Amino acid sequence: MDQQMQVTNQVLRYENGVVQLVEDVVVTEYPITIMLNDQEFATLVCSPEDIEELVIGFLASEGIIGRYEDIKELQVIEKLGKAIVTTHRVNKLNEMFHSKRIVTSCCGKSRQSFYFYNDARTVKPIEVKSKVLTVDNCFRLMEMLQESSTIFQDTGGVHNAALCDGNGIIVARTDIGRHNALDKIYGYCLKHHISIEDKVIAFSGRISSEVLLKVAKIRCGMVLSKSAPTELALRLAKELGITTVGFIRNNALNIYTNSERIITPELAK
Amino acid sequence: MDQQMQVTNQVLRYENGVVQLVEDVVVTEYPITIMLNDQEFATLVCSPEDIEELVIGFLASEGIIGRYEDIKELQVIEKLGKAIVTTHRVNKLNEMFHSKRIVTSCCGKSRQSFYFYNDARTVKPIEVKSKVLTVDNCFRLMEMLQESSTIFQDTGGVHNAALCDGNGIIVARTDIGRHNALDKIYGYCLKHHISIEDKVIAFSGRISSEVLLKVAKIRCGMVLSKSAPTELALRLAKELGITTVGFIRNNALNIYTNSERIITPELAK
Repeated sequence: MDQQMQVTNQVLRYENGVVQLVEDVVVTEYPITIMLNDQEFATLVCSPEDIEELVIGFLASEGIIGRYEDIKELQVIEKLGKAIVTTHRVNKLNEMFHSKRIVTSCCGKSRQSFYFYNDARTVKPIEVKSKVLTVDNCFRLMEMLQESSTIFQDTGGVHNAALCDGNGIIVARTDIGRHNALDKIYGYCLKHHISIEDKVIAFSGRISSEVLLKVAKIRCGMVLSKSAPTELALRLAKELGITTVGFIRNNALNIYTNSERIITPELAK
Repeated sequence: MDQQMQVTNQVLRYENGVVQLVEDVVVTEYPITIMLNDQEFATLVCSPEDIEELVIGFLASEGIIGRYEDIKELQVIEKLGKAIVTTHRVNKLNEMFHSKRIVTSCCGKSRQSFYFYNDARTVKPIEVKSKVLTVDNCFRLMEMLQESSTIFQDTGGVHNAALCDGNGIIVARTDIGRHNALDKIYGYCLKHHISIEDKVIAFSGRISSEVLLKVAKIRCGMVLSKSAPTELALRLAKELGITTVGFIRNNALNIYTNSERIITPELAK
């Protein structure tokens, strides 16, 4: 019995004075419990797709593993809603910060190891390398991100993230949780040994401090979004050397931080 | 030094081929640590407005207090980012489920006490009372919700929630965290002894299982949104007797559950 990303549902639809019973598509939320080295570690509520990547990315962004090879065994048992993980070595310090917990899907999740604790120790600034994107690249990537997600168009209920370079999307992932979508990208990159510092993450949601830190943990130097950043996210972006581009829509965009990675026309006087 | 909901920021703006340095408005994220009976209880990342209501609503939805009078003292010290709370009695069982944690703002936050644990014990179904809204009421309330939030129009970065009845909005609250916005409403109602079962919550974001449970904990029988619900939210809504109305836009809407509270035209054959 495979889990489904979305299901159909009967709904009472009102439109311009007419009421009808219609079939409607709704996204699912799927709880998956990670058993780490025989202990319950966390329960993620996610969209049931690319779960292995999600687990890898989650463990890496929590600092439990440093690379894919730190995992000795990973088995996802969808029917039971479990992911059984054994690691070669255990980061005791990070486990200390963890208590058993539920990590919900509501636009991602909330990490106890928020930057006040863990992240301050582990996240390092990204060095500027070179120009990466033109303004037109930014517009095109956001369009491609939206086109990549049919489920969003159907149900309006998910977040999309894509790893890109100037040529287009390398990998795109979808989840009801904003952080899950990013963790799936991270897990994919770790598993396939894709270097990421010179790449770009295009994201469907707002750039909050949590999203920015996730991008920094993945070690990606740039994030694009059609939505707004928060002020705390921008402060972190400056400190961590990450380029943030927001409000990408209608042939306009805002470059908030570290603009040196974007090729633009000359500044108007 | 009062905390601000939003700040201005210099940004490199590209629009139709022209690049300019412009002033831009960005929402802030403000961490507030709740000290409960001399112990650190949780840190919420929120928009710095209506913090007292937020703390009251958060403690109630976590099951720490049952009513406003359970609080002996509540002092918000904005400069230090602390809320000092003393309660008359302590719910030991709920405290057991709590470890010290950070609750972040990213579209709300994630509660360890997700419904798998606490909520199954505490959330009770809402009894249907009577017809509450017409379809036109639904459209009007969603419009009023959007008009009530100038900060959203400026920055595109916050969630809005409002407690309503058929006549209009009773109280509206704004936060970068979706759950915070709902907790502020809850705190307001507890403090002012506003009965809520026959009322309606209009909400700017998606109806996830977490949002639905929050509405159930507040003991509100109906939730309206311009966005989509998830499948798990709908299952819970059915069980808990909550009316969910989504995709309210362009003179159309979907009634997903417990439609008996909405007055509609007759079903088309």
